[in-house]
Amino acid sequence: MNKISEIHQAAGQPSVTIQDEFWGRYIRLVQDVVIPYQYEALHDRVPDAEPSHAIANFEIAAGRKKGQFHGWVFQDSDVAKWLEAVGYSLRLKRDPELESRADVVIDLIAEAQQPDGYLNTYFTVKEPGKRWTNLQDCHELYCAGHFIEAAVAYYEATGKDKLLNIMRRMVDHIDSIFGPEEGKLKGYDGHQEIELALVKLYRLTGEEKYLKLSSFFIDQRGQEPNFLRQEWEARNRVAHWSGTPTDSMDPAYNQAHLPVREQSKAVGHAVRAVYMYTAMADLAAITGDEALRDACVRLWDNMTGKQMYITGGIGSTHQGEAFTFDYDLPNDTIYAETCASIGLIFFARRMLEVDPDARYADVMERALYNNVLGSMAQDGKHYFYVNPLEVWPKACTCNPDKHHVKSERQGWFGCACCPPNVARLLTSLNQYIYTVHGDTLYTNLYIGSELKTTLGGTEVRVSQQSSYPWEGIVTLEVNPAQPGEFGLALRIPSWSNGAEIRVGGEKLDMDEGLTKGYCVIRRVWNAGDIVELKLPMEAHRVYAHPELRADAGKTAIQRGPLVYCLEETDNGAPLSSITLNESASFTERFEGSLLGGAVVVKSKGSRIEQAGWSGGLYSKAKAPVAAAEITAIPYYLWGNRGSGEMKVWIPESKA
Amino acid sequence: MNKISEIHQAAGQPSVTIQDEFWGRYIRLVQDVVIPYQYEALHDRVPDAEPSHAIANFEIAAGRKKGQFHGWVFQDSDVAKWLEAVGYSLRLKRDPELESRADVVIDLIAEAQQPDGYLNTYFTVKEPGKRWTNLQDCHELYCAGHFIEAAVAYYEATGKDKLLNIMRRMVDHIDSIFGPEEGKLKGYDGHQEIELALVKLYRLTGEEKYLKLSSFFIDQRGQEPNFLRQEWEARNRVAHWSGTPTDSMDPAYNQAHLPVREQSKAVGHAVRAVYMYTAMADLAAITGDEALRDACVRLWDNMTGKQMYITGGIGSTHQGEAFTFDYDLPNDTIYAETCASIGLIFFARRMLEVDPDARYADVMERALYNNVLGSMAQDGKHYFYVNPLEVWPKACTCNPDKHHVKSERQGWFGCACCPPNVARLLTSLNQYIYTVHGDTLYTNLYIGSELKTTLGGTEVRVSQQSSYPWEGIVTLEVNPAQPGEFGLALRIPSWSNGAEIRVGGEKLDMDEGLTKGYCVIRRVWNAGDIVELKLPMEAHRVYAHPELRADAGKTAIQRGPLVYCLEETDNGAPLSSITLNESASFTERFEGSLLGGAVVVKSKGSRIEQAGWSGGLYSKAKAPVAAAEITAIPYYLWGNRGSGEMKVWIPESKA
Repeated sequence: MNKISEIHQAAGQPSVTIQDEFWGRYIRLVQDVVIPYQYEALHDRVPDAEPSHAIANFEIAAGRKKGQFHGWVFQDSDVAKWLEAVGYSLRLKRDPELESRADVVIDLIAEAQQPDGYLNTYFTVKEPGKRWTNLQDCHELYCAGHFIEAAVAYYEATGKDKLLNIMRRMVDHIDSIFGPEEGKLKGYDGHQEIELALVKLYRLTGEEKYLKLSSFFIDQRGQEPNFLRQEWEARNRVAHWSGTPTDSMDPAYNQAHLPVREQSKAVGHAVRAVYMYTAMADLAAITGDEALRDACVRLWDNMTGKQMYITGGIGSTHQGEAFTFDYDLPNDTIYAETCASIGLIFFARRMLEVDPDARYADVMERALYNNVLGSMAQDGKHYFYVNPLEVWPKACTCNPDKHHVKSERQGWFGCACCPPNVARLLTSLNQYIYTVHGDTLYTNLYIGSELKTTLGGTEVRVSQQSSYPWEGIVTLEVNPAQPGEFGLALRIPSWSNGAEIRVGGEKLDMDEGLTKGYCVIRRVWNAGDIVELKLPMEAHRVYAHPELRADAGKTAIQRGPLVYCLEETDNGAPLSSITLNESASFTERFEGSLLGGAVVVKSKGSRIEQAGWSGGLYSKAKAPVAAAEITAIPYYLWGNRGSGEMKVWIPESKA
Repeated sequence: MNKISEIHQAAGQPSVTIQDEFWGRYIRLVQDVVIPYQYEALHDRVPDAEPSHAIANFEIAAGRKKGQFHGWVFQDSDVAKWLEAVGYSLRLKRDPELESRADVVIDLIAEAQQPDGYLNTYFTVKEPGKRWTNLQDCHELYCAGHFIEAAVAYYEATGKDKLLNIMRRMVDHIDSIFGPEEGKLKGYDGHQEIELALVKLYRLTGEEKYLKLSSFFIDQRGQEPNFLRQEWEARNRVAHWSGTPTDSMDPAYNQAHLPVREQSKAVGHAVRAVYMYTAMADLAAITGDEALRDACVRLWDNMTGKQMYITGGIGSTHQGEAFTFDYDLPNDTIYAETCASIGLIFFARRMLEVDPDARYADVMERALYNNVLGSMAQDGKHYFYVNPLEVWPKACTCNPDKHHVKSERQGWFGCACCPPNVARLLTSLNQYIYTVHGDTLYTNLYIGSELKTTLGGTEVRVSQQSSYPWEGIVTLEVNPAQPGEFGLALRIPSWSNGAEIRVGGEKLDMDEGLTKGYCVIRRVWNAGDIVELKLPMEAHRVYAHPELRADAGKTAIQRGPLVYCLEETDNGAPLSSITLNESASFTERFEGSLLGGAVVVKSKGSRIEQAGWSGGLYSKAKAPVAAAEITAIPYYLWGNRGSGEMKVWIPESKA
């Protein structure tokens, strides 16, 4: 291994520690509850949860005990995601007990690794002869990717390289199987993940071969003859999941319908898509490949400009957990998986490396504060996998078209993709606050934190204080080791109106220096310089593009980064009886007793008076309508007060 | 066979011949196009259609040729439905060539019948040892039911009893297998149909054993231990459709979750449900069984009062083609199968026998003029199986949750349940116009026709002329053989307002004699007495119950029996941009050039001006709205002018 720390510095990642009241609570929840809970779950010691069997699979693969493989073909990835979150968590806070638990798991992984470097318990235990025969369904490279991410995170936190060396051996093995050379497989995984993981491994180690392998997987995807189709034919079209032949296969589900540089629309399984786009953006940032960058921009524009819910959710259908097509964003049959929004945040983060454009950070903020934050219950043990914008609980139970939508957060599944993804995102949230381009520090998220980095040759510390998400008061104290010139760029969120910036008490002319959504302040900074940002947070209405049929005639309420929703418990059922007067103003009040405290928004509207309905199912006579007070709470808090109706988009009416 | 014609008279069915401009055209379409087309289809001679193989299956079962069974397990039923429609058609119009074709088919059926009376080509050809082992999936009794209906219809039309005798032998065989006696199966079919068919056989022949067998199937259903569940366990839970074990089975899908007398909610597969309710109502009418009648009324009330679309469609989900729950009537993910509305019409017809209440006829009219009529293209060769109330064609193609919804009528399938069901309904439509209770003739549908019956001992002819569905002018000429007292009851449709009746030119006081939605005129009638009914047909708005969330804030347009809709071709896309002013009036004009002529309704509303939208996917700024003219056409004509958006429920706005 060569020059790891050096390479790591070269990647320009500033060191950031979060000190934030709002996010601190969630990060502690992950550390105190989620990581220990998942550890127990992986060891099948959670009484009410479906057994994971993930550690047991490793014990069997390692020859420590006899038994059968159980779980999904990608069951290993849960162990990897846990280790990755542990890595991030240890970097935030030393915890020798947790570290020793992780070391024990890593020892087990080492024993499960095969002599040739291969690591995957499913194929080691259950189908040893079938390695690399069903890339489309069997997630071998996907699982490897997650272990690579874990290895990098664990090394960065602890300096321990045992898992890193395991994964470098595994990657060498993969490299001997896949590649453009004669005799190697011209393939790639059905579920993208290793591509972005290899970039992390490259960034840590500086070894070109990892970058090359990542590029191979990305470039090979969608080339003709189509690898996934050939593979499918070669296994007589038998699907791993059903064990029976399938009538057809659609490479678009795996984003393998076209070479990635020719893709312009977000299609297929949403998580796979955003994991791939993340790797594409990584490679474009590192290599400067313009065609790849342009594809990233096209895919970003399509996804966030035509296929994204206002909450930052993506994936309009549960069938294939997939994108559908432009402007098709049904609120109630939606998928909007938590993992997909997390992947969207990954992609946004990488695009900020490619190009410091605040629109990437705007989407990152939107997905983080709404879809992702809303997925986790206040206890850290219950999650939404699907994040609807409109819920009628009885329909979730009694109409099979909505069985996938739940009105209350669910317990941990046997293999629960979303909760560990939330855990690894929140414990690494410090990596999303800033990006550095040249000698300019870009502030993407307003989260209380301490930063240490080098800008224009000067060591700089920046201390951020933020009253997000309830108020938009942000203070940055800039402390260069010695006075020096560099840039500090503050994102002016697209939702804000009337933002003000003061540097050393003096108000900036906002029109000056506003570039791609950032106010760039370039000057000679002195120790203790104070930058104050004021983003007035007023509840306001948001409207959807007229082609977005599901939201026509409706409005959503947003305040700062938070999208709001109506709940039955505040407004009565059915919520469909309620309209919001199109000219009514909003009143806002922080209610400390509401689920940890939140700003509640009230307004005026009308409600159909069901008692006045005189007909049967249909009638010539309309029900009377009465004035009504409407109460909206932040979307991320929905479903925490029992099962009830919820909706984000509210029809508007004239008073 | 005993006293068939006598029994038939005793059933009190008046003889009715349709002479109606509007329906005459559709009935001729069935006779001239649909029946010959299906004949060719059954013989695999339609070039562009999937082969049916239905006649071939009979030829193989008859030993005339070698080969394999092909098609669905219920493929035989297509032959039966064709023969039934042929029977009705021959009763309307002699056609020696058609009759001889039918006779040839019947000869083939006779040869395919097994020595013990068994008739079913699937189990004769493909799984001879498995008769009666999977009632849940395999439709043996269902197919028998359709052949019984065909046999009755063909006998009534032609007096030929060959098919009737085949089916009486088959029923004797069924009677030897099923029944309460020791050693017989305590079962029933997964798909109800034979129950109502056996009542028809009883009505024709007067043989109690048929009534008893029908009652057995009805009464046994849902009893514990549950037959379908026991059978499922006995075959190791293997489903016929997949050939693999299923995790669970839900007898509610087959309406076998409770004894029928204890059922109160319409559940499960909608066609099965209404076929069963039809038989229940038949039995209640014949036996006077009050518990059965009460169950029918409860199920009717639930289905039509809480689970029926304004078009008379039923079945809110394509998953299981099923009911979901009260007030769950999504317009775009809907099922609303054509066959289900036809079954609803069967049920309504039987309820009118149980109780002369116009609400049954109101629903019959609603389903007939909207869901059913709309299912058939003007060429008789293309059909909607699913009848949505809102369509975005691109979503039907690109969102798998709506793949089952089509924006244009489809060609005939290999086994096409709906088209032959439309054919048999339209050729027997004369049976739905009137019912007789005691000495009162109830007029349910206003369709030009000639009736012959006996009322209060007097032979009576009634000649009806109707300008339906475009105007509500109906004239009845009453011609008793000699002056006599009897009742004539005219339905006053629930949609009408200001109905007027004149008898011999003299205006009736409408409040007098209005009973359960019928104006009953009791007097001594003389030859040539004229009754004039005037039902002003004005386009008006209809609103949905406030619990019906999908239609909140929206209105539908109805004129007479016809529900209206907006189409993209008249109003532009997206239709979601359009609202109807809540106080705008309607203008109505008959447009002879529109798809055979129709009254078009226009009104005022507003349209979101997409050109004025300044945002991306979401924006704080609303798009401007402009006044717009709105054009609505009858729902039954939708989808005949190319693929485009359509919707029935239109949001209302203040001007």
